[in-house]
Amino acid sequence: MVTSLRLPSLTHLFSSPSIAAISSISGRSPSLLRRRFHWLCLRSRPLAAGFSTQSTAAETQDRIDSLKNRVPDQVITPRSQDFNAWYLDVIANAELADYGPVRGTMVIRPYGYAIWESIQEYLNVKFKETGHSNMYFPQFIPYSFIEKEASHVEGFSPELALVTIGGGKELEEKLVVRPTSETIVNHMFTQWIHSYRDLPLMINQWANVTRWEMRTKPFVRTLEFLWQEGHTAHATPEEAENEARQMIDIYTRFAYEQAAIPVIAGRKSKVETFAGASKTYTIEAMMGDKKALQAGTSHNLGQNFSRAFGTQFTDENGQRQHVWQTSWAISTRFVGGIIMTHGDDAGLMLPPKLAPIQVVIVPIWKKDDEKVAVVNAASSIKAVLHSAGIKVKLDDSEQRTPGWKFNFWEMKGVPLRIEIGPRDLFNGTVVISRRDVPGKQGKVFGISMEPSVLEAHVKEKLDEIQSSLLEKAIAFRDSNIVDVTSYDDLKVAISEGKWARGPWSASDEGEIKVKEETGATIRCFPFEQPDGDKKCLMTGKPAEEVAIFAKSY
Amino acid sequence: MVTSLRLPSLTHLFSSPSIAAISSISGRSPSLLRRRFHWLCLRSRPLAAGFSTQSTAAETQDRIDSLKNRVPDQVITPRSQDFNAWYLDVIANAELADYGPVRGTMVIRPYGYAIWESIQEYLNVKFKETGHSNMYFPQFIPYSFIEKEASHVEGFSPELALVTIGGGKELEEKLVVRPTSETIVNHMFTQWIHSYRDLPLMINQWANVTRWEMRTKPFVRTLEFLWQEGHTAHATPEEAENEARQMIDIYTRFAYEQAAIPVIAGRKSKVETFAGASKTYTIEAMMGDKKALQAGTSHNLGQNFSRAFGTQFTDENGQRQHVWQTSWAISTRFVGGIIMTHGDDAGLMLPPKLAPIQVVIVPIWKKDDEKVAVVNAASSIKAVLHSAGIKVKLDDSEQRTPGWKFNFWEMKGVPLRIEIGPRDLFNGTVVISRRDVPGKQGKVFGISMEPSVLEAHVKEKLDEIQSSLLEKAIAFRDSNIVDVTSYDDLKVAISEGKWARGPWSASDEGEIKVKEETGATIRCFPFEQPDGDKKCLMTGKPAEEVAIFAKSY
Repeated sequence: MVTSLRLPSLTHLFSSPSIAAISSISGRSPSLLRRRFHWLCLRSRPLAAGFSTQSTAAETQDRIDSLKNRVPDQVITPRSQDFNAWYLDVIANAELADYGPVRGTMVIRPYGYAIWESIQEYLNVKFKETGHSNMYFPQFIPYSFIEKEASHVEGFSPELALVTIGGGKELEEKLVVRPTSETIVNHMFTQWIHSYRDLPLMINQWANVTRWEMRTKPFVRTLEFLWQEGHTAHATPEEAENEARQMIDIYTRFAYEQAAIPVIAGRKSKVETFAGASKTYTIEAMMGDKKALQAGTSHNLGQNFSRAFGTQFTDENGQRQHVWQTSWAISTRFVGGIIMTHGDDAGLMLPPKLAPIQVVIVPIWKKDDEKVAVVNAASSIKAVLHSAGIKVKLDDSEQRTPGWKFNFWEMKGVPLRIEIGPRDLFNGTVVISRRDVPGKQGKVFGISMEPSVLEAHVKEKLDEIQSSLLEKAIAFRDSNIVDVTSYDDLKVAISEGKWARGPWSASDEGEIKVKEETGATIRCFPFEQPDGDKKCLMTGKPAEEVAIFAKSY
Repeated sequence: MVTSLRLPSLTHLFSSPSIAAISSISGRSPSLLRRRFHWLCLRSRPLAAGFSTQSTAAETQDRIDSLKNRVPDQVITPRSQDFNAWYLDVIANAELADYGPVRGTMVIRPYGYAIWESIQEYLNVKFKETGHSNMYFPQFIPYSFIEKEASHVEGFSPELALVTIGGGKELEEKLVVRPTSETIVNHMFTQWIHSYRDLPLMINQWANVTRWEMRTKPFVRTLEFLWQEGHTAHATPEEAENEARQMIDIYTRFAYEQAAIPVIAGRKSKVETFAGASKTYTIEAMMGDKKALQAGTSHNLGQNFSRAFGTQFTDENGQRQHVWQTSWAISTRFVGGIIMTHGDDAGLMLPPKLAPIQVVIVPIWKKDDEKVAVVNAASSIKAVLHSAGIKVKLDDSEQRTPGWKFNFWEMKGVPLRIEIGPRDLFNGTVVISRRDVPGKQGKVFGISMEPSVLEAHVKEKLDEIQSSLLEKAIAFRDSNIVDVTSYDDLKVAISEGKWARGPWSASDEGEIKVKEETGATIRCFPFEQPDGDKKCLMTGKPAEEVAIFAKSY
């Protein structure tokens, strides 16, 4: 029983079959982890701290260490064989994240966190450019706050983590560990906003949030996650609507231009609208298994929270009015979206604009006397690219073969690899390989080491990869969306794992029926709508818009 | 009773006496807040959500709004009169922070948060330059983890916030909301570290932490605060010691060079060492009231946590050994340190290197036809300075007089002000005023608007202010440290509110006696020690080192 409670360790980057055999003794092989993860997902209670001591692992440690230098066979499950297993293997092998000791929690490891930092850097600038200031609200919210907005409490109360003891004493009022901050934000806005001169009030915070989810999956749905949450208050409904649209537009551009993810932006159905919002806008991304991922949302909150919290201002005519509000968020879930959009059987594939390492340099030598010259040249190249603003890593470790390094950095999703050996050095050239084009097709030989030539070539290739990833993802997306005109068509499309797009004006009950019968939900009514008359696929009555239906994470 | 439970609102930047009178009706004047804050500090239970609706405030709102445009009288309590009241007034008036709804929590407002962002930007670069990677650990820690390291649990158990309910169900094991992360870090390190090749492991996280403090004070001690916590593991004790020293050196340089705070760096006494550490290094800062503020710490953890959590590695000889560790942190408390080091009766005074706004431009006009030309010139100046990398704000609002703006931005601590009126425009010059030199002495007239001249002048002045703040703080510090050779001397120095520095080799009991009798503790044994033989001020026996004693926050 102690063994079965041991927590998984995902430290092994690769294992040869023999390592895997040894590993499984101590419960360490990725496939075993995967099975255990499923099991963990289904538990509704946190694990007790039932991790064993390191002693059993220690027994096999020396043998593992002695095997570590072999060229590894990759143990990532093929994507086509089992998408979920592949996803977990990539996260483990690329060292993106690990499981925390409490069920459903995740440790974001440096390589995964660096992707999140890239996301933060881009969005933080955009938020500030559009007039938002960062700030920080406490994470503990009095329980009574959550109850103030009726649909909000209904949506969130099943997912709350509650602090009931502080400083050794039972608390008079339970504290909610924030699942989102609308309530505490409004409590403060009510104190800060007095007149129309105080509006618009536009803020953002980068924070952790907690939702007690039953079925968890690293990055995609975890008990605690990191996000940014923007909150704004405006004097008119038009301003609030413009703000909500502006922010979903910023998310959309981010997804396309930085993450190379061709999301479909649109409006949520009433059933799928955020608990407490008047309207929810969303960006929906198609993952490699064709399931939809809600990758970011922007809510027009109307006056729902301002009425619940009495957030009023005196307008230019001296009248007291409730403010109009928005909130919007992107979370570490987006990292999961990047993995599941671009990754392949070889592992992770990162868009250059978000890659923590854009170029890896692998020097190749056989004899010791070759080594110094090759590594020196590689260092010079690194310096050239670094000063050109390219994120570059030189892997000159002696413990691994070049072949091992090639596989390793491909698995880590580094967009470009530069190889340099004694013959290249003699010719004053390098070999450059693209991560996104496998084999010889992705290799270019004889690129000059001359700084200006090399720098220009690398930048051009990075741009090409960025564009190419987006184009591939668009092609994949478009070939998997089926236009449907009837419920039967929709059922066929969903049963084939595709997205169905069709006119919709049926009731909430109709929408729930689709979910129950097909597993698909309305992902959104896309902003981009086809022209012409439409008839609801369910009722045959006139429809204003098409909706997109899909199974989702 | 409802009124007395109303939460303070700190939105009024200034109040004329008449506003203060009106405000106090709805419980809004800063001085009332202050009294309430004291009262809140002493409560050991969180406030119920007993805030009233906005209706009473609404009644007085119109009158307040109509008065808002008067040139304000400042209501900041003079620093010399009541340091604590002054501190709270500065935080309220400069809009640095506000109270959260739960006792002891703090909302960090945009201007306060921007100072924290400046701190983050600098330290984040330094951490990465010295080989540390950012990552993120879950904030929920199984209660059993805290109990594994004996002195750690003793130090932290009285301060824990515990989650006992998740997703509507009582949890099998209580979860600790992290007060610090050594335990969960070691739990993960144990899984990641196998051989000497995995070392050193050097990471950092930016996160929120929770400590259920009984006496709170904005920034200085809050129930939840933001910090960075570095955690490293090494193969040898020497490496861990070097790391712990390196990080306190980085903090020291940060304090001197960025914050203009002349901290004294040194080693904590055994009594004051972090719960679980072998050695604690600290930077101690002298605040404006001469109390000491522990502004950052770096711990050599030895093998305390690695033994408790079985964090072992196989060394080069194949032997299993426990790793040697460090941890180190700086928090939002540092913002409090900046306020209390440099601020004066006019409000906040920010060191240019950490100021969110380094230069404010105030255009001055009387007639409408003057306005356009003056504001255009001010905009050009803003553009010039902005493109030179200076953080500049143009305050061209029409709702406030220039005099009001001068006071306002002085109170916000902006290092430099540029004034430009019609006559200046005619002469092609501006007036530049230093925040740190009051009155005419700090003003320079007739500085050319010519971009290169102006830019050079502004940069030079900002550098001068940065140096001057540090020099003043050094002079203040040094004039308030008294060298003592006897316990009587020490008592006199402490009773005068000063720091006492004297040789110390007495027992822990002696140290505790000093605390009980004088209120002072050993802040540190400074790294910089005087030469020559020393005799313990308490026992007269030989002493290796001098210690610094002071009352502290």
